[in-house]
Amino acid sequence: MDLTATTSELASAVADVARLLPGRVLDPVLAGVVLRAGPGGVELSGSDRERSLRLSRAATTHSEGAALVPAKPLAETLRALESPQVRLVVEGARLAVRTGAARFALPLLELGDHPGVPELPPVAGSAPAGAFASALAAVATAASRDDALPVFTGVRVHAAGDRLELITSDRYRLGFASVPWAGGELDALAPAVQLAEVAKQAARDERVELRADADRLALAWGGGSASTALLAAPFPDERARKLLAAEGECTVVLEADELAGAVRRAAPYSGANGAVQLAAEDGELRVRGSDPQAGESSESVKASVSGGLLTRSFQIRYLSDALRAFAGRRVELRVQSGLRSTVLTAEEDASGVRLTYLVVPLRTP
Amino acid sequence: MDLTATTSELASAVADVARLLPGRVLDPVLAGVVLRAGPGGVELSGSDRERSLRLSRAATTHSEGAALVPAKPLAETLRALESPQVRLVVEGARLAVRTGAARFALPLLELGDHPGVPELPPVAGSAPAGAFASALAAVATAASRDDALPVFTGVRVHAAGDRLELITSDRYRLGFASVPWAGGELDALAPAVQLAEVAKQAARDERVELRADADRLALAWGGGSASTALLAAPFPDERARKLLAAEGECTVVLEADELAGAVRRAAPYSGANGAVQLAAEDGELRVRGSDPQAGESSESVKASVSGGLLTRSFQIRYLSDALRAFAGRRVELRVQSGLRSTVLTAEEDASGVRLTYLVVPLRTP
Repeated sequence: MDLTATTSELASAVADVARLLPGRVLDPVLAGVVLRAGPGGVELSGSDRERSLRLSRAATTHSEGAALVPAKPLAETLRALESPQVRLVVEGARLAVRTGAARFALPLLELGDHPGVPELPPVAGSAPAGAFASALAAVATAASRDDALPVFTGVRVHAAGDRLELITSDRYRLGFASVPWAGGELDALAPAVQLAEVAKQAARDERVELRADADRLALAWGGGSASTALLAAPFPDERARKLLAAEGECTVVLEADELAGAVRRAAPYSGANGAVQLAAEDGELRVRGSDPQAGESSESVKASVSGGLLTRSFQIRYLSDALRAFAGRRVELRVQSGLRSTVLTAEEDASGVRLTYLVVPLRTP
Repeated sequence: MDLTATTSELASAVADVARLLPGRVLDPVLAGVVLRAGPGGVELSGSDRERSLRLSRAATTHSEGAALVPAKPLAETLRALESPQVRLVVEGARLAVRTGAARFALPLLELGDHPGVPELPPVAGSAPAGAFASALAAVATAASRDDALPVFTGVRVHAAGDRLELITSDRYRLGFASVPWAGGELDALAPAVQLAEVAKQAARDERVELRADADRLALAWGGGSASTALLAAPFPDERARKLLAAEGECTVVLEADELAGAVRRAAPYSGANGAVQLAAEDGELRVRGSDPQAGESSESVKASVSGGLLTRSFQIRYLSDALRAFAGRRVELRVQSGLRSTVLTAEEDASGVRLTYLVVPLRTP
């Protein structure tokens, strides 16, 4: 194998593969990136059996072939290069990375031991890639990072007519988004954070294809594809939909960024529990913090308020995550009675994303 | 006390005081910032008895007075504000921080319990502030961060005629700089990292005044002053000067940034010991790394080489620190025989800083 490529393009592709792969594996082969030089350019792929990624990049192939090398050292090496072009050559038991004045030699791993990237499952349909990526990024913040309860780390991807629905929940908040959908049936539960990560890659293209079978969900776009094993757990779907059918006793409409700023400024006063209070008042929403050491904060944000004037406390981190999903837009807060969750919604955005976000208020004395 | 000030100016001044103060103290009064509003503006000061800082900033004083509040929450609050102006008012037992829509109330600490900022010791002389700050930043990287051996965390500040010398060493490297000096005798050992931090502040002014007595070293400039207790330990001065009188068996002259880049690129190949090898060759310096897992690297940097062609290994972190001190300049490396240190020097820069940096090579098999 012998090829020349643009350093920055190759560096970012190898970094993307390296990021997908687990940091520490028993089998070093699974921490490797497969480079395959062909007449059309270079293909980079990685897989730890659970998840896989395959990217195509432009390259001048001097001699076809394939090689498997540790992904992280290769990514670090390429990232540090200043030379605009880089040459990758297999030399004996080494992959040589060459620029004008420098040569880096990485040990080859046994290509035959690599599991390879699984075949993509059949096409289910497609969605606008940018909308899909931004919707997924928004709802992924409501997914749990705790692998002990896998179902709450997942995003439910569900085709409903001409919309593709994305649902996440860690039990304290719930993200629900939908984007335009052209295709047939699809119902899968996949790791949310990881899918959001590869969706960003797909957003380089116009549309992203979703592919699925009983075991895997895959994204495919011009320039690459990624797949992940499904989470084998039943998502509490009906419960989620019931929560979404919320009726606000009090409705507050305001600029998401203004409220996010006020919440950020209340953070030093959010106390040991990280709590912030929102109080609907006439023509404004008041953001309050109180901490025995740091003192008190109070800030009002202009808002149009209708219904009863309710007050709720929230985990500041959850509220900030929710508001970030609506950045740059007007958001409607529907405050429900008692300890029922507060619903954040906005109008469908220009790219066709509809988003609803639920946050459970804190029990206050 | 009641004053209005520019938010960004006040925020950065309070942040500077907060940064100086220890994170956790038994006595909360020592984690406080004293605000004093007078006809000329506002004075901010902090002291933990060991070190102290006093800054003056422009402000409109509506009512004179003083207040003591926890420095970190005030710094966080001011940093998060978007409003260009901010008002600070004492209201009962609180300091209120007010902008148009927001009010933050911090509990007042007992001003009478604060030790105050000690009187500055007598003037020893002065130096150009920018040169002093950059020289100190360069040598501070060679000081130890380990408080167990205080003498190695210090910078020796020593007046020698019309030059002010700054010396640091953690035993594995040694930093020696001098800047123009107008003044009399001065010989003090002060915490290097902390002095470098306040010297950055002083660099807002043209010149910085150095003041000292048997216990303290202080910097004073238009807009503020800072003082620190001296380290009570004898610095191995003669030994350091002997080391500086080095004669290179091999001399290499090259661009510091080019070598720093090559060293950075060798980092993934620096192995468990973080070692990188420099080999003088004809017209170039070769930078090599080798690691059983990651592979090997080799890069040549154009250099003018004279004397014998020597090879030395270095701790990559120490070498990078040394080269950063010469950023943007040509540096001369004098490689000595055996395990004697390698000397890095450059010509006096435009601001009058002369700098020499020693790094001890690694013992290699």
